[in-house]
Amino acid sequence: MTTAPFTQTPDAASAGIEVPRGLKGVIVADTAVGDVRGREGFYHYRQYSAIELAERCSLEDVWFLMLDGRLPSPTERDGFIAATAAWREIPDEVLAVLPAIATGAGGALDGFRTAMSLLAAHQRLRPLIDTDPKERHEDALRLCAVTPTLLTTLHRLHQGLEPIAPRADLRWADNYLWMLHGERSDPQHVRALEQYLILTVDHGFNASTFTARVIASTGADMGAALVGAIGAMSGPLHGGAPSRALDLLDEIGPLAGTGPVTGAARERIDEVIHAKLASGDKLMGFGHAVYLTEDPRSCLLRSVALELGGPLVEHAIRVEARVIELLDEFRPERQLRTNVEYYAGVVMSLCAVPAAMFTPTFASSRVIGWCANIIEQADDGKILRPSARYIGPPPPAPIPELTAG
Amino acid sequence: MTTAPFTQTPDAASAGIEVPRGLKGVIVADTAVGDVRGREGFYHYRQYSAIELAERCSLEDVWFLMLDGRLPSPTERDGFIAATAAWREIPDEVLAVLPAIATGAGGALDGFRTAMSLLAAHQRLRPLIDTDPKERHEDALRLCAVTPTLLTTLHRLHQGLEPIAPRADLRWADNYLWMLHGERSDPQHVRALEQYLILTVDHGFNASTFTARVIASTGADMGAALVGAIGAMSGPLHGGAPSRALDLLDEIGPLAGTGPVTGAARERIDEVIHAKLASGDKLMGFGHAVYLTEDPRSCLLRSVALELGGPLVEHAIRVEARVIELLDEFRPERQLRTNVEYYAGVVMSLCAVPAAMFTPTFASSRVIGWCANIIEQADDGKILRPSARYIGPPPPAPIPELTAG
Repeated sequence: MTTAPFTQTPDAASAGIEVPRGLKGVIVADTAVGDVRGREGFYHYRQYSAIELAERCSLEDVWFLMLDGRLPSPTERDGFIAATAAWREIPDEVLAVLPAIATGAGGALDGFRTAMSLLAAHQRLRPLIDTDPKERHEDALRLCAVTPTLLTTLHRLHQGLEPIAPRADLRWADNYLWMLHGERSDPQHVRALEQYLILTVDHGFNASTFTARVIASTGADMGAALVGAIGAMSGPLHGGAPSRALDLLDEIGPLAGTGPVTGAARERIDEVIHAKLASGDKLMGFGHAVYLTEDPRSCLLRSVALELGGPLVEHAIRVEARVIELLDEFRPERQLRTNVEYYAGVVMSLCAVPAAMFTPTFASSRVIGWCANIIEQADDGKILRPSARYIGPPPPAPIPELTAG
Repeated sequence: MTTAPFTQTPDAASAGIEVPRGLKGVIVADTAVGDVRGREGFYHYRQYSAIELAERCSLEDVWFLMLDGRLPSPTERDGFIAATAAWREIPDEVLAVLPAIATGAGGALDGFRTAMSLLAAHQRLRPLIDTDPKERHEDALRLCAVTPTLLTTLHRLHQGLEPIAPRADLRWADNYLWMLHGERSDPQHVRALEQYLILTVDHGFNASTFTARVIASTGADMGAALVGAIGAMSGPLHGGAPSRALDLLDEIGPLAGTGPVTGAARERIDEVIHAKLASGDKLMGFGHAVYLTEDPRSCLLRSVALELGGPLVEHAIRVEARVIELLDEFRPERQLRTNVEYYAGVVMSLCAVPAAMFTPTFASSRVIGWCANIIEQADDGKILRPSARYIGPPPPAPIPELTAG
């Protein structure tokens, strides 16, 4: 047969619409889920300041808000807490496979990705575009409710420990720490962790949320979209690795004295930071792609850390002050400030969350934001199918005779 | 603490760049992998016509081309075939978990998604941005090489059959049919299937390829990107479900006579198609988002089907002719023609691929295209992080006293 006629005239695709690299600033959707106002250091879930929500509400309130678009009444809240707590158990057939997944997993998110994929398939989720809104809403609640159980179970199995079953009588953060340690935590730690979890529920169209939305735009099921988002979150260029910021504090090591750093303490910080800046390394815990001011999540987490108190907090505060001075000297044109990762690691450490669980803990509440975005995108009904510009050698080239058989 | 100062002034994100819905025509990347010229009914892999490659080359040649950017010499081809055939085996630790995955999976792609996630974690793939290009290239070959084994093993387990181990002495398509049935296939069927597999290796920035690239842009590992792509491919709005087109042929049922349809045969086709068009159903197997002409894949698959011959092919040809007449009457402004799905189902049926394996078979060679795109995107090094326009109620709204605790 003959192939279709071909001319070198570029068509619609090759004469496409030019946009900034990385889609920076490109509006890919309308959303009522929330927004990040990077210049103002402000972000919100639905119409409420995320910071105020973390200061005054429970994670369950925020979860209800993200999926329903409004905060619950006290009665609704009680019903919501009871209903979602009942969905924390992992089905037996999935639980049976988790030891093999936990053993095989390289990183914690790899295991979570496989477990979520398996669980979603087990739940027989229907394609988003074929699912009744009520059923889809319940799917979202169920997948979010079981996520902490998947994460803590995988972690304990990976550590060679027995998994601890969820307790339906405890609220999300309390139960999370329970499943990690098998003992109750100090209410102040529970609340500190809850505030962290609220702060990380959603944050604009970052790459994982965008991935979830691209997959949702195909009408695939909610599990497919979540699994893709987990994969994107595992990327080093995606935020969400507070352990890296804590590593910096460890690397600097104990500092002499108290209060503003001087003398040997100051020299030690300068030495570590100068070496990193000179080698072109990114300074973990500082700077953000969207915030041109201080990350508002960092502000609140610093005050949460200060309330908890202790030597690690003092260390972090002292290092932060000096590093910011150094960054202002090194990069006077940019106001580089601490981002969410800096105090997240500190707060989670104080709440006895092991470093291997920092990123999974971040993911544990982010699933709520992903689900709200997935549902909104599926409602849009239009597949996300962009174009590219071909820059290779001009086609069609003749196939070399040596190859063609 | 007080929250950051907030004004209603929109900032960079909310005053973002407007683009068409679904990112249609928006250039999200430069690529040398290939292109689809929808107006001309032409598409290419690297600089070669995909149709000519399918007519004249082996799948292994095209696989080499996609990852290396050039066709292999005869010596390189032999080495490539031997090396990749040796990577078809599923590691024992992963194989042991596949029965549980196959039993739990709703759709075939769900099981593939979980199995690929597990296998990638088991391989301890490193983040794309930290991986040496040679190692990354080998990762891609290994993951593509094992994909047909994962798919056929899951299928047989799901059917309650023993899996059949891959044979390193057979080429890709031959081995694929071997693993499905446990017996050798007619060389004409092997070649027909191989041509189908070549045609579906890549096809521009469709939603699954785009998903793979968004995940790759975070620097995550190749498995994370593939798993996301599999999820996107499972969406009903994503192409790749040739069984739906075959269902249409089944629904129309056997037609009287031979050759151009007349009389009762014609009435039967008209009845089915009119009912579908009247109810607003999409006509599966016809029309394409990018091709405004006939899908070039359909042209070649029709000729492949005609060479194989038989009653199903004759049925498909007769139905196609009449449906196109009807579509031209119903939608004179659009030239709706058969797409890749129409003859894909016919060709796969004739090659004894069961309908449940149509979409997995499509996925089995598409992983090659995904890997080529993943590597290219990772080399770009810039995260894909778009913006959105917030359209909800204006923030910050005061938190209701009833909720705040």
